[in-house]
Amino acid sequence: MKIETTADYMESLKKIDPVIYYRGERIKDVTSHPATAPHVRSAAMTYSLANTDAYRDLATATSHLTGNVISRFTHVHQSVEDLIKKIKLLRVLGQKTGTCYQRCVGFDAINAVYTVAYEIDQKLGTNYFERFKKWLVDIQNQNLMVVGAMTDPKGDRSKGPAQQSDPDQYVRVVKRTRDGVVIRGAKLHMTGAVNSHEILVMPTTALDGQSKDYAIVCALPVDADGVTMIFGRQAGDDRRDKLERIDVGKPRFGAVGGEAVIVFDDVFVPQEKVFVNGETDFTGSLVYRFAAHHRANYGACKTGLMDVLTGAVSYLTQVQGTARASHVKEKITEMIHLSETLYSSSIATSAEGWATPSGGYMVDTMLANVCKQNVTRFHFEVARLALDLAGGFIATLPSEYDLRSEDVGHLVKKYFSGVEGIPTEERIRIGRLIEAMTGGTALVESMHGAGSPQAQRVMIFREGELEKKIKLAKVLAGIPTNKE
Amino acid sequence: MKIETTADYMESLKKIDPVIYYRGERIKDVTSHPATAPHVRSAAMTYSLANTDAYRDLATATSHLTGNVISRFTHVHQSVEDLIKKIKLLRVLGQKTGTCYQRCVGFDAINAVYTVAYEIDQKLGTNYFERFKKWLVDIQNQNLMVVGAMTDPKGDRSKGPAQQSDPDQYVRVVKRTRDGVVIRGAKLHMTGAVNSHEILVMPTTALDGQSKDYAIVCALPVDADGVTMIFGRQAGDDRRDKLERIDVGKPRFGAVGGEAVIVFDDVFVPQEKVFVNGETDFTGSLVYRFAAHHRANYGACKTGLMDVLTGAVSYLTQVQGTARASHVKEKITEMIHLSETLYSSSIATSAEGWATPSGGYMVDTMLANVCKQNVTRFHFEVARLALDLAGGFIATLPSEYDLRSEDVGHLVKKYFSGVEGIPTEERIRIGRLIEAMTGGTALVESMHGAGSPQAQRVMIFREGELEKKIKLAKVLAGIPTNKE
Amino acid sequence: MKIETTADYMESLKKIDPVIYYRGERIKDVTSHPATAPHVRSAAMTYSLANTDAYRDLATATSHLTGNVISRFTHVHQSVEDLIKKIKLLRVLGQKTGTCYQRCVGFDAINAVYTVAYEIDQKLGTNYFERFKKWLVDIQNQNLMVVGAMTDPKGDRSKGPAQQSDPDQYVRVVKRTRDGVVIRGAKLHMTGAVNSHEILVMPTTALDGQSKDYAIVCALPVDADGVTMIFGRQAGDDRRDKLERIDVGKPRFGAVGGEAVIVFDDVFVPQEKVFVNGETDFTGSLVYRFAAHHRANYGACKTGLMDVLTGAVSYLTQVQGTARASHVKEKITEMIHLSETLYSSSIATSAEGWATPSGGYMVDTMLANVCKQNVTRFHFEVARLALDLAGGFIATLPSEYDLRSEDVGHLVKKYFSGVEGIPTEERIRIGRLIEAMTGGTALVESMHGAGSPQAQRVMIFREGELEKKIKLAKVLAGIPTNKE
Amino acid sequence: MKIETTADYMESLKKIDPVIYYRGERIKDVTSHPATAPHVRSAAMTYSLANTDAYRDLATATSHLTGNVISRFTHVHQSVEDLIKKIKLLRVLGQKTGTCYQRCVGFDAINAVYTVAYEIDQKLGTNYFERFKKWLVDIQNQNLMVVGAMTDPKGDRSKGPAQQSDPDQYVRVVKRTRDGVVIRGAKLHMTGAVNSHEILVMPTTALDGQSKDYAIVCALPVDADGVTMIFGRQAGDDRRDKLERIDVGKPRFGAVGGEAVIVFDDVFVPQEKVFVNGETDFTGSLVYRFAAHHRANYGACKTGLMDVLTGAVSYLTQVQGTARASHVKEKITEMIHLSETLYSSSIATSAEGWATPSGGYMVDTMLANVCKQNVTRFHFEVARLALDLAGGFIATLPSEYDLRSEDVGHLVKKYFSGVEGIPTEERIRIGRLIEAMTGGTALVESMHGAGSPQAQRVMIFREGELEKKIKLAKVLAGIPTNKE
Repeated sequence: MKIETTADYMESLKKIDPVIYYRGERIKDVTSHPATAPHVRSAAMTYSLANTDAYRDLATATSHLTGNVISRFTHVHQSVEDLIKKIKLLRVLGQKTGTCYQRCVGFDAINAVYTVAYEIDQKLGTNYFERFKKWLVDIQNQNLMVVGAMTDPKGDRSKGPAQQSDPDQYVRVVKRTRDGVVIRGAKLHMTGAVNSHEILVMPTTALDGQSKDYAIVCALPVDADGVTMIFGRQAGDDRRDKLERIDVGKPRFGAVGGEAVIVFDDVFVPQEKVFVNGETDFTGSLVYRFAAHHRANYGACKTGLMDVLTGAVSYLTQVQGTARASHVKEKITEMIHLSETLYSSSIATSAEGWATPSGGYMVDTMLANVCKQNVTRFHFEVARLALDLAGGFIATLPSEYDLRSEDVGHLVKKYFSGVEGIPTEERIRIGRLIEAMTGGTALVESMHGAGSPQAQRVMIFREGELEKKIKLAKVLAGIPTNKE
Repeated sequence: MKIETTADYMESLKKIDPVIYYRGERIKDVTSHPATAPHVRSAAMTYSLANTDAYRDLATATSHLTGNVISRFTHVHQSVEDLIKKIKLLRVLGQKTGTCYQRCVGFDAINAVYTVAYEIDQKLGTNYFERFKKWLVDIQNQNLMVVGAMTDPKGDRSKGPAQQSDPDQYVRVVKRTRDGVVIRGAKLHMTGAVNSHEILVMPTTALDGQSKDYAIVCALPVDADGVTMIFGRQAGDDRRDKLERIDVGKPRFGAVGGEAVIVFDDVFVPQEKVFVNGETDFTGSLVYRFAAHHRANYGACKTGLMDVLTGAVSYLTQVQGTARASHVKEKITEMIHLSETLYSSSIATSAEGWATPSGGYMVDTMLANVCKQNVTRFHFEVARLALDLAGGFIATLPSEYDLRSEDVGHLVKKYFSGVEGIPTEERIRIGRLIEAMTGGTALVESMHGAGSPQAQRVMIFREGELEKKIKLAKVLAGIPTNKE
Repeated sequence: MKIETTADYMESLKKIDPVIYYRGERIKDVTSHPATAPHVRSAAMTYSLANTDAYRDLATATSHLTGNVISRFTHVHQSVEDLIKKIKLLRVLGQKTGTCYQRCVGFDAINAVYTVAYEIDQKLGTNYFERFKKWLVDIQNQNLMVVGAMTDPKGDRSKGPAQQSDPDQYVRVVKRTRDGVVIRGAKLHMTGAVNSHEILVMPTTALDGQSKDYAIVCALPVDADGVTMIFGRQAGDDRRDKLERIDVGKPRFGAVGGEAVIVFDDVFVPQEKVFVNGETDFTGSLVYRFAAHHRANYGACKTGLMDVLTGAVSYLTQVQGTARASHVKEKITEMIHLSETLYSSSIATSAEGWATPSGGYMVDTMLANVCKQNVTRFHFEVARLALDLAGGFIATLPSEYDLRSEDVGHLVKKYFSGVEGIPTEERIRIGRLIEAMTGGTALVESMHGAGSPQAQRVMIFREGELEKKIKLAKVLAGIPTNKE
Repeated sequence: MKIETTADYMESLKKIDPVIYYRGERIKDVTSHPATAPHVRSAAMTYSLANTDAYRDLATATSHLTGNVISRFTHVHQSVEDLIKKIKLLRVLGQKTGTCYQRCVGFDAINAVYTVAYEIDQKLGTNYFERFKKWLVDIQNQNLMVVGAMTDPKGDRSKGPAQQSDPDQYVRVVKRTRDGVVIRGAKLHMTGAVNSHEILVMPTTALDGQSKDYAIVCALPVDADGVTMIFGRQAGDDRRDKLERIDVGKPRFGAVGGEAVIVFDDVFVPQEKVFVNGETDFTGSLVYRFAAHHRANYGACKTGLMDVLTGAVSYLTQVQGTARASHVKEKITEMIHLSETLYSSSIATSAEGWATPSGGYMVDTMLANVCKQNVTRFHFEVARLALDLAGGFIATLPSEYDLRSEDVGHLVKKYFSGVEGIPTEERIRIGRLIEAMTGGTALVESMHGAGSPQAQRVMIFREGELEKKIKLAKVLAGIPTNKE
């Protein structure tokens, strides 16, 4: 049965029973538990947008495998146009949820594995590509949500997978049978894991020949035997969990993606869902393609968030009577400027996309890294400017309980009012929205999601074509270049 | 009785009974209520340091009024040396609490009112200076904690105090009697208010002749009739209130200063504690002196916090095995560089201090504004660098409940471990400390405490001596300057 | 006769006789005068690239007016593909000349006037579009170089054109006859003017109904009666003029575009070359379209320059033995990162291009402004990083005369040597190239070419759709939006 | 005879005959040669200021060796007050010359050698300190200008002095006799060398035991046998050399310090002027002390330059009619803010000064490095902002010859005019001043003078006391610290 609507999606999640812990206890129903429900609602937006006339063209695609109309989040990009539509879709979703809607991870994983599986088969005569397409058609037809599972714990980071004192610090195959493989280890920071249907496991780094057991790509359901998830804490999670409406800032949709640890405690995966198994030579390519797709996305979804933040601050300055001050306009201009700079990179990395041998399209990898690198700077700066304009009350505002209190509610209303005619509560709501979107977890995700800043710099240097640039300089300086 | 020790301070707070609301309910004992106790402990550090050999010289001073040894926080600066010792004291306190210890506000208020009261008397023949000294000797002898109360709600910021539709948006005198004045209004963001003994009220802006009722400086006890305080929310306050030990990050001392709204609902202040009453001409000077002292301090206390953050991140990179990577050293170098740049400004603004006619010393006002302006940039950048180096687990770490859980505790320990030999719990503790010190409230305070960024820029431009600089340029360019 | 080759271009310039002053004297032949020849050679590269197999596809286009293969620099963009090819062409030209090759100005002017002339005709029933196409076919067929002449002197910038005490501070029509118009005024900073064939005059700002005489768009040859050009000074121009080979840094191609003042001293322009004449309503649109095209270009050509600079510095660190230091790699990474961020914007602004009613394509205006704004920051930062890595000898290196001196040449060679085996002269040449590309004029052009920074900010704010963004925020904060 | 006045100084320079090359030819008289005269005039300001009532207190000091009133530039700092007065003196000199006045290098060298020579003697029983004091009394009494000669060519920077293929890439002793030493090598970037009287040679880096011959500190006259100087090129030097008055921008005083290479071609130095001779253990300390003093100075002299630049731009915006625009004020505010931030560091590094065992005072080394590091960033940013506000005419302005031309002078005057009543020539003069102070050499000096940026970062990291900071963090996070 295909998931079409938000309701379908909720129902589908109720039908499965993954092992999820949070604050030391099991979460039985992610659709209703206050800690996970907001994240479920964010992800649900990816389903509901496909049913909206205004966004159907962005939110759906035609499967090149079946010809069916499918969610774009299950599609393999077939053109530059696909890549650009994705970027526009992500910005809209960021604008509508003000947060992470989680399905990009699986989306990018699908696109990376698809193109690499093809290349492995071409080189080694394996059968991974057909297996993967079969699995993917299923995902497309049912419209399942997939969590792309890449980031390993890594233990002592000065050592590689095979050098760790605990060999499980990277997910690995502990047993191979005729029917499949048994895997052990964990994946951290798993966005959307607790409300996904399927996990697509990938290695976290390029591996050498000594690390064959770590070169595993495979898919499994979130409620497979031996899978345990532990849902992480976030800034302000208590307000969310206590169902506070105003103080949580953005009550309908959560902050970031609702990340979890996924532990694989000797989990069996059948052969037909194994897509790489020991081919270490291709791990670098796989990791890099996933990373490039994912990094390209950040300039789109985060721009959507910054649009919200810019709007929130603009409104707040109207409420506070400062909207016409020249320094206010100057700072809002800067917020827009930085947001659009990020968006540029996402558009450009798509516009410069190229076809892999499988037919699946890749983004420009240099520009994707540049895009994400700027996210790690500009999202912080945009947040800083928002806090500058919002004012100190973001840090000192009394609680919603005080606002509702018979004893002091009238004082809160009186002394947090702004220009005449706008209810104090609107000022408070916008203040809390800004608080929620500028502090802690929200920004950390922009820093480390899709790879930490240094990961991008390594790639930018590597792809910088310095020899070619040296030659340009030598020619202009009149230095012989025949040495090259 | 003089408050000498932490215990004395605690006892003194138990003896008074201010009206404090938090989450809609009264707080009866700030020393034990989980929301306020950590802030009380931070403030207590200002008392206990005076009893430590290593810091006594910084933490105490000799009163020029009585010759007694007093807390430096009740002292009127008598020299450049005093100003520099204050800076060193504040950095140490920042290092030891990792947060705001609140007593600077009253300290700076005392120094501002002292010098201005003198000047009013000199010009107008009033008697404010004697009144103030009398009150101050009392504060010094009892070693009371004073909250400097300046920031008004301001309502519609495009209008001045007298133009507001609600005249109470700035604290004002609503009645004058032979014995004293009755004041109404509120002060926002009042650092340390709930655990202070005395309030020193000041206007928030330079006032013109039409705003005489707003030109009020006076002192009153925190439990005076008609005073109500509402304690504000902070990022992560629930973790603090639930007495979580690890997840709160810095359980002993709170975040920022524990700010409150102070409402004055027709509060009577006797004449002998009124220090300015309608002399609008001096309000600009008063506000600016307070602001300059306070802005100068931020380069000291925040440097203390950044020292902690730099240490936390350094240790975390050791735990994670990344401490020797060149980009890690580079970023830690930048954190130190920015911290010390701030500290420079604080030292310089003291070194360039000058005697007012009263004998009380002022800091250099240009450099004080420059100092605070940089705090609004560099604290964010230092936090950003800390989050870069700390890694994504800051945003996704499971809770302490999971760490302690029988079901999943072993998984948390296994998969959040770092280099061999260091307990996972240390990594988690440091991670939570970094989380607490880099998100939300902690940074907002650096932005807006002691005046929002634009307030500093206005002063920097005003004090920039452009005419003098234009003359320098003209001379070098060979342009006649006799016009000036 | 169509100009096909560099030689054709040189010959064509010798045939005309514009009035050009430089250092108080007439320049008779721009192709051989040392001050102008390097700029002529840069512009010539736009011709010669069209004859190269590797770049023909970028450097030429098929005229939609005639079906002929033409220089892309005379083409009206007919598609997004055209816009993207232009960007790639500009980067290549920047890489090959290390400077401005000048033809973009006319190129962008052609595209702006084409689309606006069409719209004027549609609205007012005028005949400008046909006139313009006729003129343009001529330009295309002869492959002429056109200087787009926009920037007026502006006199007192606090006043508009009609308020100036000298009405000639903006180019204006001083007389209208049946056959044409007579114009007076000047255009500043005219890139490539002295080696162009034709001038395309446009207003510099949106005009209101009181400024009809300033609303003039027309074309005229550079040697028309009454046209006088004064060629500007540049940093290091003496080295260029004295034909120094090493010390000029980039002897073959000049720095920036070789800008000139063009004075129109009552110049007659016949009716068939007048394309706007008093239609003030369309001037805003015209200026903005030209500006958007031109701003979009800066992310391409300057990236080409930064590629050269990155290569130069990379080579220099090899020569000096520092190439493997981690901070060197870090800074080169940053240079690449900033360059590619700029390039992203140029690509994106093209990828988001759209068809005007005339069929001519416009770039995305928001992204074009964002692009140029970043140029005004990043080019300086890239230059700063280059100077950081290059070392202090950029500022203190003895002259080429010393290098060649019998007395001290051996000392220069000995004491400016680097790693063994690389001639000292190579180090010096690269050092001089970096000097030439990072100081003075070279950077000023990035700041102010295509409009000063504030011009972009005004547009970014204006196009920021704040009302839409406010609505997004209100929805997420639970604030009613029906007011909008 | 003591040099008292500018005239004395000029005369003293005419009396000596150092070997100086420039552009392949000997300079016979530095006081009149157009290339060197402006730099001589800058240095002369250090003499003339001592004769001015307003500045005598800053510009002179009382020798602790003789009790005589001496130039502060020959003084050994005896107190924090001395260190602070020096900073104020340097800012004034920067304001009055708009450039480098060169005498700091010798000043700082004197202070470094004085304190280290004392410590060597204390430890090793040598007699360097007495020798040095004898030499210094002579310098003080005659008021000689000393060039501190530190920076060696370094050849292949991946290798140390003793590993170079050419052993002369660092100055070294090639022969030791009973009477003295013979040295060979060169020093680069020697500020003020050509118009100094005496050279004080120091090693450029900390040396190990294998590099004894490189551990040489000694003094010699600039015209000693075997000394050759080659004067370097600068941006815009031709305009200076051709005695252009307007276009050189700052005709009276040059740009930067007038740097030269000093070559020592087997120069004999008598024993009594040798102050370190093989004591490699003390070279690190010597280099670091010199560097710290010198880095501390940059926040003072460059602030003086930025004061000029801020004034120049402010005036230019008045001329152009833009002075009241909000973005103009904003940018000028930022220029002041950055300048004063630098100044803060210089003041602070002095205020935190400390007495060495010799009694000579050192600045705070951490803050000195922080200060210089910020110079390498902020001077560029201040220049960038100046160019932003100045406008594009900085890059395209016709020459002074055109301004004076009968043919086109009236056009230049007409079309470069600003607000009514201010002569165009004033706009041009200010424009040229800004051009001279923001491009090329002027900025490179801020980058590399007193050590390249990375040199400061190494020291900032080294002095960052990370272990202490880690302990602070552990205490707050509740982690046991007994391990340390």
